[in-house]
Order: sequence, then structure tokens, then C-alpha cells
Amino acid sequence: MKWYGWGDPERRLELGADAIAMLRSEMGEVQPGARTSLESVVVPAPRPLPSALAEAVGPAAVLTGHEHRVRRAAGRGYPDLVRLRAGRLADAPDAVVLPGNSAEVARVLELCGREGIGVVPFGGGTSAVGGVEPVRGAFERLITLDLRRLHGVEVDRTSMTATLGPGLRGSEAEDALAAQGFTLGHFPQSFEYATIGGFAAARSAGQASSGYGRFDELVTAIELTAPAGELRTLETPHSAAGPALRELVLGSEGLLGVITRVTARVRRQPERRRYEAWMAADFAAAADVVRSLAQSGNLPDVIRVSDEAETRTSVAMSGTSGGKRALLGAYLRLRRRDHGCLLICGWEGEAEAVERRRSLATRLLRSGGAAALGGAPGRAWERARYDGPYLRDELLDLGYMAETLETAHTWSRLGALYDEVRAAIGASLAVQRTHGIVMCHLSHAYRDGASLYFTFIAPRRPGAELEQWHMAKVAASKAVVETGGTITHHHGVGRDHVPYLRAEIGELGIDALRAVKERLDPKGIMNPGKLLP
Amino acid sequence: MKWYGWGDPERRLELGADAIAMLRSEMGEVQPGARTSLESVVVPAPRPLPSALAEAVGPAAVLTGHEHRVRRAAGRGYPDLVRLRAGRLADAPDAVVLPGNSAEVARVLELCGREGIGVVPFGGGTSAVGGVEPVRGAFERLITLDLRRLHGVEVDRTSMTATLGPGLRGSEAEDALAAQGFTLGHFPQSFEYATIGGFAAARSAGQASSGYGRFDELVTAIELTAPAGELRTLETPHSAAGPALRELVLGSEGLLGVITRVTARVRRQPERRRYEAWMAADFAAAADVVRSLAQSGNLPDVIRVSDEAETRTSVAMSGTSGGKRALLGAYLRLRRRDHGCLLICGWEGEAEAVERRRSLATRLLRSGGAAALGGAPGRAWERARYDGPYLRDELLDLGYMAETLETAHTWSRLGALYDEVRAAIGASLAVQRTHGIVMCHLSHAYRDGASLYFTFIAPRRPGAELEQWHMAKVAASKAVVETGGTITHHHGVGRDHVPYLRAEIGELGIDALRAVKERLDPKGIMNPGKLLP
Repeated sequence: MKWYGWGDPERRLELGADAIAMLRSEMGEVQPGARTSLESVVVPAPRPLPSALAEAVGPAAVLTGHEHRVRRAAGRGYPDLVRLRAGRLADAPDAVVLPGNSAEVARVLELCGREGIGVVPFGGGTSAVGGVEPVRGAFERLITLDLRRLHGVEVDRTSMTATLGPGLRGSEAEDALAAQGFTLGHFPQSFEYATIGGFAAARSAGQASSGYGRFDELVTAIELTAPAGELRTLETPHSAAGPALRELVLGSEGLLGVITRVTARVRRQPERRRYEAWMAADFAAAADVVRSLAQSGNLPDVIRVSDEAETRTSVAMSGTSGGKRALLGAYLRLRRRDHGCLLICGWEGEAEAVERRRSLATRLLRSGGAAALGGAPGRAWERARYDGPYLRDELLDLGYMAETLETAHTWSRLGALYDEVRAAIGASLAVQRTHGIVMCHLSHAYRDGASLYFTFIAPRRPGAELEQWHMAKVAASKAVVETGGTITHHHGVGRDHVPYLRAEIGELGIDALRAVKERLDPKGIMNPGKLLP
Repeated sequence: MKWYGWGDPERRLELGADAIAMLRSEMGEVQPGARTSLESVVVPAPRPLPSALAEAVGPAAVLTGHEHRVRRAAGRGYPDLVRLRAGRLADAPDAVVLPGNSAEVARVLELCGREGIGVVPFGGGTSAVGGVEPVRGAFERLITLDLRRLHGVEVDRTSMTATLGPGLRGSEAEDALAAQGFTLGHFPQSFEYATIGGFAAARSAGQASSGYGRFDELVTAIELTAPAGELRTLETPHSAAGPALRELVLGSEGLLGVITRVTARVRRQPERRRYEAWMAADFAAAADVVRSLAQSGNLPDVIRVSDEAETRTSVAMSGTSGGKRALLGAYLRLRRRDHGCLLICGWEGEAEAVERRRSLATRLLRSGGAAALGGAPGRAWERARYDGPYLRDELLDLGYMAETLETAHTWSRLGALYDEVRAAIGASLAVQRTHGIVMCHLSHAYRDGASLYFTFIAPRRPGAELEQWHMAKVAASKAVVETGGTITHHHGVGRDHVPYLRAEIGELGIDALRAVKERLDPKGIMNPGKLLP
């Protein structure tokens, strides 16, 4: 991964001339973004750690070099990228520790508890909300616990479950499962880098979660290695033995301990994958179609509706990937559908089931007024499904800010949530004299509601990038809270959403979580400054 | 409800001559069961309660009469029935309090906390595991909080959710929803009496939960009125804002506070309901068919496989309901399928979807070797779906013990669990010289496993009924724990499963729950003696 951005440094998704022209015409000229070199990034010197640490995991598993520390000093949200590119990181862990198994994790936690050393669990480092920031809290010393060496894969073919190490990247887990004929079906945009442990810790949802289920729905059993000991839930399909502790570990974002093992339901590798695009007149009409699909049990495995702004921008940027011509734009012009809302539908599974389910959904799409655009733009979307963060790097190079945030609500309140959040972001950018593009897609549908995922691009305020971001984020979050939506559908709380957790779960809810935290992590060493206010 | 048993006292399901002959031939003669009268039930005199209680809810909402107290002194497990029939209740609540709204619940809890009075939340009183027993714990005084007056129904037609009062019986909720064209689709055997609050507090699963989802899967938001305050989760389809507090309240069995409001997903009333029966050669073959249905996404909404013993017993008892001839037996003889394992399959929904899904499942049923018995025995099962506890009363009158217990495991371990638990119950009955019938059904199927529900009937040990039950229960529970199954799939922990919770969630899991309990219920007044060891 690039140290200052996303993905393979060798892979660049240059924006086409169409896209750059569109950005200029909508937002005017901007000053190109600069970035410093890795060597020039200034971080405080590491504080000395007890030698017992190297004894616990072996000396080769304790890394203190500059690059190692910088690479675990930030996640991959927009403010992270701003800080990395400027070389202005407030802090970095004193060391990166790579335990080889659960017992070594336990040993490190025991030592850190005794010595008063903060611990940040680290998977792919892709948090979009500050979840892996090296916040010391009350501690003078802090380590990052990189879990990449916990990468076991064990499949129960009869029960169709896989027990996975938390350090496996999504792509590594898929490769290992594919070799045995299975898939998790979990494909978030961060898939290439984010890990199994991170998916569990932050309640990840993927692009195909409408079909396969969100990651928290896939998990059947979980093991937490906490400072106070080990918590392991039974591997049974369900239990009514009290409150679900699995659901207490899922979403715990490293605050209760380290997720050291995850058992999840898998499916057979799909025989057929069919993706296609549709166009709806407007966002409300498209949402109604998705609602009818969801409430009749006919949801495709992937369903995604872009609003007018996102559709327009996607069309302009669709020539980007691999330098191809603007495929999508050509299709739309051909069909005289150059505005409206783009729907992506995807089905995966046995060929017969895919065709049957597609034909049922097609009926509802048509009766909802959507027009078929065919398979080509669907496949183009599929090929580009992990491109978002690569494009963000390009936008930052050009001099734009680019950020995303997400929420969810019931169908009866979704329209209000969409209007309020979009208006709030737009107003915040306008008041800063950085009028931008605010776009949105609906990408996780349920019988009772759906998620909304906002992306906004604006000329950056040179030298005041973090303030610009913060103002927009606060405005959006307040709008979410006032409309009663959730403060996060699948990115988690991290650091960025902490101020809004009280609105989500109330004072007593926070008290309840604190009580659990105090019991499982009595010294409070785990991931300071995240999740709980 | 009968004070000493199940259901409408006017409704009796007399066992037919065939059934009685079968019981005699398998288990020999037994001495008929006796029962005392309501007036003769001896309970300790109620202790005086502060007058502020009547001020909090109004004097008419505080009941102290003999019958009121006896009716809240026991659930509806076999040991409850033994104690009721013998008129030997260890205790009864000092009063039954009926709050009219959440604010009154809060007022009562505040008062009880201050005064040191234990509180048992009470819905339908149908707990099969001792969940509503008036255990005083450290308190001299104890009330039962009967929630029947909290019975609001509010439907969001767009989001297809309903916000329901906890005191609504399953049947009352269904009637209210049906009037608006909706259904919860939650039909446990206790449906006629058990309540919404109880479904949530004990993580209920119903006969159609494979299709509609278990009750905990239907709940989208929940309100808990706890001694320490109010906890309310947001009504959004999902959230990644930390651990799921909804899942902490679900299954909390009255220990954290009182569930005062539940929002759940509803569906449209089904246009068609189609039930039918199939016969498989043996239980393992039938389980394999169900597994293939589950893992291919083709599960019927109701799926239920009886093992050989339950099939045989069902055939013998099928003449019972309403005095009809042994329909099922006749069918089986007609088709020369008088042994094997009975499968019940049910589909509900739009007519077209029902037929489509049925035809897909039929293919798998046939290729798994099952033989179709047609719709008549399916409909007969459907008509008798709530009869189990009525029949139990008849068996107790005849002089038999009759008890049920349930568990679940992954497909790869289900056969071992079935063998071990069945053998353990059989051995326990045999060693007590009360050889009986041990039968089982699989009734909740998942991609990764299924539940097993055991029923056992045996000649009772007159005067030693509770010891007899306890020995069998311990034997079964130990077998469950040793095989790694869950100690309960949908009955909850109550009092009966407390000794096994440590095996299920470990010491640290219990610590975590205790921490939450101490924070939400600092005086420990809520439902003493249940769930936590």
C-alpha cells in the first residue's frame, strides 16, 4: 500500500480529460495538491519499551523503524491522507508488534497492562474514521499490534463455515476459500487490504451484503483475547443463552480486546455472476423500486442506486479505469438516458437461480419505471468496484478534497435523511467558499430501510484542509442525528464519530459499554480514545 | 389459562384409544395423576408492601389475592406443573403490579430499588425454564410486574415495521396486525399466551422462523426501562455504532430491566399458505435433505423433521385433536409408509412465490429420497400446531411425565448431539426404572446447522416427580455441554439452565454480563436467581 494513500503504488488510475473538464467546469480551477516524502514525515521519537516485549513475541516481531511506525500511524480517511501528505503526524506508535498466535497476543496484553502501555489493534489499517490512530490517552507508551501473522484458514465443509485468522486480508481469505470452492461473499471497497478482524471489529458491510449478509451476519462464533482473559462464543447456528456476547465483540473496535479468531458462514463459489445497470428517473423513484425489491424478498445480491449527482459524475469518470473510453457515457447517450439515477444490480450463485431471481427482479424494476441499460455498464461497474480510493488519490493530487460518510434509516425517513445530510454538506462547503459536488448512493437495502453513502468533492482550502473537512463532517453528522439516522452504517465509530455516540445509544447505553470495557480491560489499555466518549 | 396447566380450561384434547394403547404398550400401566384445587394451593402469606406502590400505579393495579399470586408463581415447564398440581409452591409474589405505561414501570422500579424489593417481569407466564419463578434472592419482599397493560400497536406501513407493547400476547399482536394487512410471522407453540416482551426477553423462535426469522432477527429497535434509567436503541435497519445494545437487551430475561417497547419487522399477510408432509427413510437422511435446502437457499418457511420415535408417536396421537380419526396414520398406511421420519414443510406468501419456492424445494426433497405424503397431513399438523402443551396436560392427568428441551449445533456435529442427548435422557429414565419414549424433531434450520427439540414421556415416579425430572434434565444438559451444543436454542436460561451457562459463555462472558447488570440494575432487584450463576 502507498504510505500516503491507497493501494499498490504501481497502479494509478489517471483521470481522463472528460473527468478533469467536468471537475473544472463544476468547481473552477484548483491548486494541485503537494505531498512530502516518506523520509520527511516527522513523528516523535519512539519511547523505549520493556525488553520483555521482544521476549514475548521474539525480537524479529517488534519493529521500530521509521517506515513501520509511519505506516501504522494513520488510517485511510481523508484527514489521514491530509496529514500523511503534509508529513504532519501528531504521533506514531513506539513500536509495531506482530504476535504469532493468540497466546502471544495474551502475553503482550498482560505485559502492557502491567507496564501501562496502550495497545492499538491493527489489521489492514483502512479505517475511514480514525479507528487505528495512535492515541495515547493516559499512557506514555503505546504500541500497535499488527495482526497479520494470525492468518489461519480452517473450513468445515459440512457446516459450510470457515474459521479465519483476524490478520487475513479480505482478498487473502477469498483466495484461500476459493481454492476449496467457497466464498465469504464479503466485498467492501476496502476488500484488497482490510482484514477479517477489522471486518468484525467495525461491523463491515460489503457491496454484496444485501445478498450474502453483512459481515456481522456471517459471523457464527468469535474469540476475543482481552486483557482480563479469553472470551469465546460457541460455534452453534444460534443460541438463546442470554444476551448475545458475539454481538458485544462485533463492533467493539479494539476497545475490549483483540479479536483473535472468527468463524463465519461461507457459500459455494458462484457458478454465475451477472451484473447489469438500469436507469431510474430520479432518486426517490429508484429508492421505491429498491424498497419493493426488498419487501417482496426479491433483492439482487448487489443493489446500488446512485443519485443524479453521482450518476453524472460516474458517467464523466467512467473513462478513467485503464484509460478506456467513457463506456457508460456512450451507452447512456445511445439510449438517450443521459440523466437520471443509475442502478447497479448483481446476482451471484447457481446459474439457474441467478436467472430466475433476475427475471423476478426485472419485473419489479420495469414496473417501477426503470429502464434497462444492459450488462456492459454493470460489468464495467464490477471491474471498477474497488477503484474509489484510488480515484481519491488522483483527486487529492489534482488539489481537491474527497471524502465519504454513510448512514441509514427506515424507508419512511430515508428521503428526509437524504435531503438533510446533502443540504448540510452543501451548505458547509458553500459557507467556506468551496462549493463542491455532493453525491450519494443507496447500497445496502433491508425490508425496513436502507443505507445512504455520501461522497463529496470540493476544491480544498489550502492550509486549512482539516478545518474544512471538520466543518463538513460536523454539519453532516448533526443532520444525521437530527433526522434520527444512525451515525454509521458500516464504517464504525473510530475517533470521528465519538461525539455523536451519545445521540445514538444514550447515556445509559454508553454506561453499559463502559461497564463491559472496565471488566474486560481493567487498565483501559485497549485502543484509547476510540468509540467511547 | 388453566391455573395448573395450559390453555383454555374449556378446551380439552382427549387422547384417543389408539394413543392410550400405544402409551400402555410402550410404558406399561401408570397410576393416574392427581391434582389439588386452586383454593388448596398453599403459598406463604404476602408480606406487606409500601403504600407508595399503589400510589405509583393506582390501587386497582396492585393485586394481592390468592389466585392472582398463584397464577404468577410458576411458569409452564414440567416442574412448574408438578408443583402446581401438588399445590406445593415454595413461594409466590407478595403482589402483582400492573403498570399502565413505561413511566409507571420506571416509578415502580425506582421505588423497589429504594425499598429493596425484588421485581419479576411477567408476560404470558409461559417460561419453560423457570424464568418467572418468584425467587427472592437477597430480598425479603418481591413483586411480579405483569405487563399486560402495555399493549400498544403502531404500524409504519412504508418501512413495514410495528412498534408493539411488551404485554401483547402473540395472538393479540397478530390480530391487530392482521387488521392492517400485516403479520409478524412469529408462531411458537406458546403463541396463544406468550407475549411480545417475553419473545424478546428470551430470544424466542417460532415454527415459521426458518422463513420469517427468529424473533430476535425481527426486532429492529428496543426500549428497556432499567432501574438505572432508560435504554433505547435507534429505529434504523442497521448500525455499526459499536457493539449492538439491542442484542444485549434481547435475551436479557428481565435481569437488566423491563422491556417496555419493541419495534419489529412485519410482512404482508400471506396470500397463500401451503403445508404438506413428506416421509424420509431415517433422521440422518432427513437432516441431510434439510441441510441441502438450507445451504441452497431453498428452505420452506416451516421445516420440521420428526425422528422415528416422534413420527410413530405423532401417528398414534394424530387422532386426538377434536376427536378426529387418525388421519395421518391412515395416510401412511395408504402409502405403505408406516415408518420413517415425517417432514412438515410450509410455505407462506404470494401465491406465485409459494408455488415457485415449493417446486424448487420439492426437487431437493425428492432427490434426497423423501416421499410426498401430500397436503392433508401437512394441514393436519398446521391445525394442531399449538396443541403440544394441551396434550401434555392430558398425559399428566394419565400419570405420565412429559418434558421438552432444546439445543442446536452445526451440521457437522448435529448427529453426535442427537445421539448423545437421546442416549443420556434414555439412560437417566432407565436407571430410575421409568423407561420412556424419547423423541426429537429438528425445527429450525440454518445454513450452518439446526436446532434439535427433544420430548420425553415416561411413567412418573409418584412422589419423586421433581427428582425424576431433575435427573433427566441434568443428564441431557451434560450431554449437550459435552458435545459442544448450545444449552438452549430458544427457551432461554431461566433458572433451569443457570448451572450450564459457564460452559456456554465462559467465566469472562459471565463477568461481562454481570458488569452490565450491575450498571443497569445497581441494587440487583431485577428477576433474582435467573440467567446468571
